[in-house]
Amino acid sequence: MKFVTFLQDEQQRFGGITSSHESKIVDLTANFSDLHSVLKSDRLDAAKTAVESGKGTINLADVTLLPPITTAEKYFCIGVNYANRNAEYKDGSEAPKNPSVFMRSRESFVGHGQYIERPPESHQLDYEGEIVVIIGKEGRRIKRENARDHIAGLCVMNEGTLRDWVRHAKFNVTQGKNFEKSGALGPWMVPLTDDIDLKDLQIQTRVNGELRQDDHTSNMMFPIEFQIEYLSKFARLKAGDVIATGTPNGAGARFDPPKYLVPGDVVEVTCPGIGTLRNEVRDEVV
Amino acid sequence: MKFVTFLQDEQQRFGGITSSHESKIVDLTANFSDLHSVLKSDRLDAAKTAVESGKGTINLADVTLLPPITTAEKYFCIGVNYANRNAEYKDGSEAPKNPSVFMRSRESFVGHGQYIERPPESHQLDYEGEIVVIIGKEGRRIKRENARDHIAGLCVMNEGTLRDWVRHAKFNVTQGKNFEKSGALGPWMVPLTDDIDLKDLQIQTRVNGELRQDDHTSNMMFPIEFQIEYLSKFARLKAGDVIATGTPNGAGARFDPPKYLVPGDVVEVTCPGIGTLRNEVRDEVV
Repeated sequence: MKFVTFLQDEQQRFGGITSSHESKIVDLTANFSDLHSVLKSDRLDAAKTAVESGKGTINLADVTLLPPITTAEKYFCIGVNYANRNAEYKDGSEAPKNPSVFMRSRESFVGHGQYIERPPESHQLDYEGEIVVIIGKEGRRIKRENARDHIAGLCVMNEGTLRDWVRHAKFNVTQGKNFEKSGALGPWMVPLTDDIDLKDLQIQTRVNGELRQDDHTSNMMFPIEFQIEYLSKFARLKAGDVIATGTPNGAGARFDPPKYLVPGDVVEVTCPGIGTLRNEVRDEVV
Repeated sequence: MKFVTFLQDEQQRFGGITSSHESKIVDLTANFSDLHSVLKSDRLDAAKTAVESGKGTINLADVTLLPPITTAEKYFCIGVNYANRNAEYKDGSEAPKNPSVFMRSRESFVGHGQYIERPPESHQLDYEGEIVVIIGKEGRRIKRENARDHIAGLCVMNEGTLRDWVRHAKFNVTQGKNFEKSGALGPWMVPLTDDIDLKDLQIQTRVNGELRQDDHTSNMMFPIEFQIEYLSKFARLKAGDVIATGTPNGAGARFDPPKYLVPGDVVEVTCPGIGTLRNEVRDEVV
């Protein structure tokens, strides 16, 4: 099952798709409003039931998909995480004891199929494919063995980055990670079910069909359950909060010369079993 | 005039205070809901008129103040900013060309008079007094000469920080800046009026009455109007967004030995003309 947030006739709507009718959306908007409300009111199971018993009336192909959640209070992103990524930095540093963490804003993301925009301020737009966790149940100081209970579902992210703008200041990467419409989140949320093994997920990024990133959550230095434990040591994780769990080796900046994105490029981030997030790049019109 | 967000009988309410009746709140909740809604719907002038023509019915002394805005989509914080602060780092670096920027979450702040909490994970809780801008009018690529038009008002912040947790990872300060209830925002929002000169504001922090920070916005390396121009180069600034404009020399970590906050300490952040934000520290009960 998948939950989709979409635009139809300029209105934001919320629905579900069953595996038996993959081209049709069961519209849940009247009774469930949006995914964030569903998660905050702990009605995900009710929404699943409504999708199963409902009728698909809207063609998935006819709508504009938005990020599955558009109003999260926090978008946490984990930095260097896959084992071979730290080596890419070539600074001789040992594997870190804690993950790097930064935050993004909701406006920095578009949905599946929408354009990612390259701003006039920088031509170093880069992709970072990531698996994303959406929190379902609020918590603080969550133990890693209980972390799954706090996850509503999964989606993927292109954690688009303006490389020169992450080095603008003495510390922090906020600027280059928060250009409006520089990243994407989607295509939908797949609810976490018992058959999904968080340590057995593949993440791949393709640019114009060429495989650039290809790794596996079993290679994470900081597994997803650890991330939830770590983040919740300082922050209250709330329903709808988004965690981007880190990107593998192979971002454009790591090539010599760098392979930055240019208008017309198509970036696809795939997690088998979850979905493929596809976005074309265009220049922002100012 | 001041706009306050407060709790009364467990309900969040919104009101205004005029300079002629400083102890009484004119309750605006029925017609204006909350400050964020007022700013998003561009009704700040209407709210001012309602305060001027309304009657103060609630004793300010009887309510619990909350941060003036409790649901901002973005809380941007500017790092090293006052001229003598960069020198404190003693790393021989030149004055930076761009400000450091990081983000905080709404849960990291309490209101005036509420306890700031020291978590069991760290005993390096530190204060940082800052002047805060609340955005009133949405914008992208705002020129500094137009920046004032986008400001709804001002308040102050104790940008509470867990010092060891800002150095947890290779880059970023997110962790030590986002402990729940580690900072404070308040005591209220003073609308920006023509008589407020953004380059002529004083910021002071006292701990148990002892003056620890004392500086002036005329010493900022990156003035407030520049900050709005810079942030809006990458991010869409939206009504209700919060910008903490940087802290002066004199945080506890800079003393030898460091003067970290302990339970019972009282921190007061003052900006004359705006207000004093006062918070006592206690240990978090887990």
